[in-house]
Amino acid sequence: MSTITDVARMAGVSVSTVSNVLNGRTGRMGEATLARVEKAMSQLGYRPNLAARQLKTGEASMIGLLVPSLGNPSYGMLAREIEAESRRYGFRVIVGNTNRDPQHERAFIDDMTAQGVRGVIVISSLADESHLEAPARQGLVAVSYDSHSRRNVRPILDYVSADNAAGVRLAVGHLAEAGHRTVAFLTPKIWTFSRAEKRKGFLAAIRDGGLKGVVIEGAVASNYADAEMAELGQGLAEPFARHADRPTAAIAINDMMAIGLISGLERLGIRVPSDASVVGMDGIPLGAFTAPPLTTVRLPLRELARTMVDRIMLRLKQPGTEPAEFRFAPSMLVRGSVAPPPKVPGRGARRK
Amino acid sequence: MSTITDVARMAGVSVSTVSNVLNGRTGRMGEATLARVEKAMSQLGYRPNLAARQLKTGEASMIGLLVPSLGNPSYGMLAREIEAESRRYGFRVIVGNTNRDPQHERAFIDDMTAQGVRGVIVISSLADESHLEAPARQGLVAVSYDSHSRRNVRPILDYVSADNAAGVRLAVGHLAEAGHRTVAFLTPKIWTFSRAEKRKGFLAAIRDGGLKGVVIEGAVASNYADAEMAELGQGLAEPFARHADRPTAAIAINDMMAIGLISGLERLGIRVPSDASVVGMDGIPLGAFTAPPLTTVRLPLRELARTMVDRIMLRLKQPGTEPAEFRFAPSMLVRGSVAPPPKVPGRGARRK
Repeated sequence: MSTITDVARMAGVSVSTVSNVLNGRTGRMGEATLARVEKAMSQLGYRPNLAARQLKTGEASMIGLLVPSLGNPSYGMLAREIEAESRRYGFRVIVGNTNRDPQHERAFIDDMTAQGVRGVIVISSLADESHLEAPARQGLVAVSYDSHSRRNVRPILDYVSADNAAGVRLAVGHLAEAGHRTVAFLTPKIWTFSRAEKRKGFLAAIRDGGLKGVVIEGAVASNYADAEMAELGQGLAEPFARHADRPTAAIAINDMMAIGLISGLERLGIRVPSDASVVGMDGIPLGAFTAPPLTTVRLPLRELARTMVDRIMLRLKQPGTEPAEFRFAPSMLVRGSVAPPPKVPGRGARRK
Repeated sequence: MSTITDVARMAGVSVSTVSNVLNGRTGRMGEATLARVEKAMSQLGYRPNLAARQLKTGEASMIGLLVPSLGNPSYGMLAREIEAESRRYGFRVIVGNTNRDPQHERAFIDDMTAQGVRGVIVISSLADESHLEAPARQGLVAVSYDSHSRRNVRPILDYVSADNAAGVRLAVGHLAEAGHRTVAFLTPKIWTFSRAEKRKGFLAAIRDGGLKGVVIEGAVASNYADAEMAELGQGLAEPFARHADRPTAAIAINDMMAIGLISGLERLGIRVPSDASVVGMDGIPLGAFTAPPLTTVRLPLRELARTMVDRIMLRLKQPGTEPAEFRFAPSMLVRGSVAPPPKVPGRGARRK
C-alpha cells in the first residue's frame, strides 16, 4: 500500500505538506501544490491511515460483536442487523464466534480492546457475567443481549432483550385458545439467563391458565455446533411423544429446536399440526419454509439490534451516560404448526 | 480506558520507562521498577494499544470479510469457519454485508484498508470484479470466493471455489441413477460466476447422460433479503409442476432454494420424493431437518475456508507470492428427497 511518503515524493512536496492536505490545512497552500498532492493521492490510490487517528484518540470506528456462532441462523440474522445499524454511524463490525465460552469471550474483548474497539455487543446470555465486568469497569462500553441486570446491583452493562416470559405466555395462550390442555416446554439443560426466564414464564402462564405443564429437558454438547439445537429438538420428539402426561402441544425454546422437533415427530409418524402442535421462538425467515410453516413467537430483531448499536454510540459519545435496561415485547407469528388437539384420545390415535 | 500515561503515573516512572517495558527493553531496568510497572498495568487493566504497532507497520491483525448477507445460513456457516481459521493466526475478522453490490463492496474495502486491513475475502461471485482490481493492484491481498480468473488474464486475486460444474454433474448422475429422464435446473435470473458455471455443468451433464434438461429461471429482488432464495424456490414450484416437458426431478442452485421448492411443492399437493425428487447444493446443516431431509451436493466448507485464510496469511507474509486458483471437489450427500420417478405417467398422478 502507498504511504504518505510515496505521495510526497510523487507530488514533489514535503511529507508535512501532504499531512496539511490530509488535515484540511490548505488555507495558505498554493492551488498548484494542492492539485499536485491530490493528483498523487488519486494516482497512488492513497488512503489516509485511520490508525494514526486511532492512536490519537485511542478509538477505532469499530463495534465488537460476540456471538455463540454465526452458523446459527438466529445469530446470523442478528449480526446482519447489527452490522447494518453500525454502518449508519460509519462504524464497522469486528466479529467473534465464542461458543458461549466465558474465556473465549474475555480473550476476544481483550483483543478487540487492543485494536481500539471501545464498544462491544455480547450475545451470550450467560448467567455469570463476571468476565465482562472487569473490562466494563475499565471503560469498555458493553451491551449484553438477552440478559438482564441482577436485583439490587447497579448495572455496569446495558441490557437489551426481548421480554422472554411474555413471549412464552403468548405461546401458551395461543395453544390454550386452540384447545390444548397439556403443553410441553422443550429446552436444553444448559442454562442461560433467557432460558431460565422462558421456563419461569412457561410455568407461570400454565398456572394462570389452569393448564397442565410438562418440562422436557435435553442434554446438549458443549461445543455449540450449529445444528445442535435442531438435533436436540429432533431427539426430544420421542420423550415428548412418550410422555406419561400426554401433552398435545410443545413450545420449543427457539425456532431451530422447533424445526428439529417437527422433523423428529414426522419420523415417528406424528404429523404436525393434526397430531401435535408446535410453537417456536425467534421468527427466523426459515420457519416460513418448513412443512408445516412454523408458528412462532417473533422477537423484534431489528429493534433489538438498533437499540444495542444506538446505546453503544450514545455511551461512546457521552461517557457519563448510565447503563440501562431495555426490553421489547415479542409478538405471535401465526403460520401453520398449531391446530386443535386430536379428538380421539390416547397415543394410538396420533400415529399414522 | 487507561493509557500509558496513567500507568507511568501510578508506577511513579516516566512514560518512556513504561514504553521500554512494553517493548521488552527491560535489560537494564531495576527489578523493583519493572515490578511496579507491571503491577500498575495489571491494576489499571492497561492493554498496549495495537494502533501504535499498526501505525508503524500499517497493518492490523484483521481479515476483512465481505458477504452478501450473514442472515443467509450458507454465508453464516462460511463466516463461522473463516473466523475460526483466522483465529489460528491470531487474526480477527471484520465483516460487512454487501448485498452483492459492487459499490458497497468497494466502499467496505476502502474503509477496511483505512483501518489497516491488508487481506480481504470477498464472497460475491460477481461476474464483473473490476471494482476489486484497483485495490488489489495497490497491494491489497484479496481472495475471491466461488469465482475464477478469466482466460488469458494473469490473476491478481486468489480464487477459491468448489467445482460447481462437477457438483451439478453429481446431482444429475444421482437423479439419472434413480431413473429420472427429464430433469429441471432451477436458478435465479441474476447471474453470478458460479451460477453460470452450474448452468453450464447442468447442460453438459444432461447431454452426456442422454437426458432431457429443462432450465427454469425466476426473478429475484435486488436486495438479497435472507429468505429470498427460499421464496424463489417456493415460487418456482408451480412453473416446475406445470412445465410442458414434465420434469420428474429438480436441481436447485442452492439449499435454501431447494428447501423453498419442497415447501412450494407440498402446498401444491406434490409430495417429495414420491411425486417429485429434489436435489440442493451447499450442504447446510439445516437440510437435515426438512421433511423430507434434503439430498444435496455438499461443498467442502471447512476446506474452502481454510484455504482462503491460509492464502491471505501466506501472501501477507510473502508479498511476492503470485495469486493462484484453487478448486475443491464437492460430494453427494444422500438424505431423503430423491426417489424413482412416479410410475403412473401424467400430471394427475402427481397430485394428492
